[in-house]
Amino acid sequence: MDALMELGQRVLAQQPFSTLLGTRLTRLEKGEAELELPLRAELSQQHGFAHGGVLSYLADNALTFAGGSAMDVPVVTSEFKINYIRPALGSRLIARARALHAGRRQSVCHCDIVALTDEGETLVAVAQGTIAAMSKRETP
Amino acid sequence: MDALMELGQRVLAQQPFSTLLGTRLTRLEKGEAELELPLRAELSQQHGFAHGGVLSYLADNALTFAGGSAMDVPVVTSEFKINYIRPALGSRLIARARALHAGRRQSVCHCDIVALTDEGETLVAVAQGTIAAMSKRETP
Amino acid sequence: MDALMELGQRVLAQQPFSTLLGTRLTRLEKGEAELELPLRAELSQQHGFAHGGVLSYLADNALTFAGGSAMDVPVVTSEFKINYIRPALGSRLIARARALHAGRRQSVCHCDIVALTDEGETLVAVAQGTIAAMSKRETP
Amino acid sequence: MDALMELGQRVLAQQPFSTLLGTRLTRLEKGEAELELPLRAELSQQHGFAHGGVLSYLADNALTFAGGSAMDVPVVTSEFKINYIRPALGSRLIARARALHAGRRQSVCHCDIVALTDEGETLVAVAQGTIAAMSKRETP
Repeated sequence: MDALMELGQRVLAQQPFSTLLGTRLTRLEKGEAELELPLRAELSQQHGFAHGGVLSYLADNALTFAGGSAMDVPVVTSEFKINYIRPALGSRLIARARALHAGRRQSVCHCDIVALTDEGETLVAVAQGTIAAMSKRETP
Repeated sequence: MDALMELGQRVLAQQPFSTLLGTRLTRLEKGEAELELPLRAELSQQHGFAHGGVLSYLADNALTFAGGSAMDVPVVTSEFKINYIRPALGSRLIARARALHAGRRQSVCHCDIVALTDEGETLVAVAQGTIAAMSKRETP
Repeated sequence: MDALMELGQRVLAQQPFSTLLGTRLTRLEKGEAELELPLRAELSQQHGFAHGGVLSYLADNALTFAGGSAMDVPVVTSEFKINYIRPALGSRLIARARALHAGRRQSVCHCDIVALTDEGETLVAVAQGTIAAMSKRETP
Repeated sequence: MDALMELGQRVLAQQPFSTLLGTRLTRLEKGEAELELPLRAELSQQHGFAHGGVLSYLADNALTFAGGSAMDVPVVTSEFKINYIRPALGSRLIARARALHAGRRQSVCHCDIVALTDEGETLVAVAQGTIAAMSKRETP
């Protein structure tokens, strides 16, 4: 495993909320990240689909890993928007994010979320957002 | 408890993901909803703040309750955007959403999320989104 | 006219695109801005309503004036989202923006756009966006 | 010229605001649209760059052409968000939009805006939005 992927795994493992949900980092390269989340009943809403909040969490996290790896400094999610496309059903969700632009102070990223079923992948949501470098004052 | 609040409580109780997180519906009137989420370590990210995905989940859900109560038909979240303003720390998060407009087919809603500490409420995020009426075909 | 309003008028007059459209700055206080745009046939789309691009221009500009006045430094619009609510018809558009939060590096703002007709004001769009301080490197 | 491109040209020519700005439709296929806008001083802001409102207009319009061609029914722009990436300078702007998903009632689209200079194309903004089918009641 390369150094970037190791760093990414460590950061994800340090997020108790990601551990609670069961998220795995399956790919991390400069400006690109892939997160997977096995679906289970606990992650659903009242109709049995994955809760929209699970998808928005996954988008938030994938956008941030993509932007952070592109900028190579500590980052925070500044903002994002998500469009839900189809109800999310299946064995797992996969979020693939990439930096469309990475500057000194911020990165703009796109994310696709697909649901994996026996029949393959279905696009269930797309997101776009801004990842900002932490200011020196904010850096822990 | 009035009929709308009862319906809202029932819907929230049917969301396993909201039960996992511990969300409570504290107010629901036509076009207005308030959700509360007590913070605990499991909901945090690597710096100890509430995970951005927890805030985006809460925005998604509060926007949908506000839009759904405004339109009074089964709804789905179509899309939303969230701006993170400050790291979220405190004993609980409170999301207050209201419909800025409610039409026959969709509603546009705004949501403020505040964190509650000993010193009072601090605005930590704001969101804006579209809640759509389920089409007859989609209605379960 | 106070100094802030004078500065705002000067900036608006220096925007050739705002002159082309005919935008007026009608109010500017710390964190709050109001722009007006008289509607004419040239600003419409194929059904006779104000073009969505006119509304998005107005949102962009009002958000930026609100954020800039709140931060009191040279700023750029980082991003925004707009929800169209109703077709925009009437004698003029009025965009009212306010900073929901103003930090050292960025400001998060909301904007309402109303159309003015004989019957009063109608909400036609709402927007939310991020206004960023220009970095020293970017400042002209 | 094929029937879709002819229809697109006719719709664009019926938008007085697009005529005022000088927008050209350079490509239209099912779910994909390209608009070009030659830059001139009148379209700029106070620092000489293309005004953000020009870019947001272009995004709005390109998203709508992409979504409309994908759905093949009369449409309206429901909402979109735009991230500005770099100051826009050059001889022209090119907006390329494509539908990421097209359903019966709405389409979700992405748009890249590049500025063309002697040195080639530079990405200056990206947008994502929802294009909605006009309801029968709304169709003119």
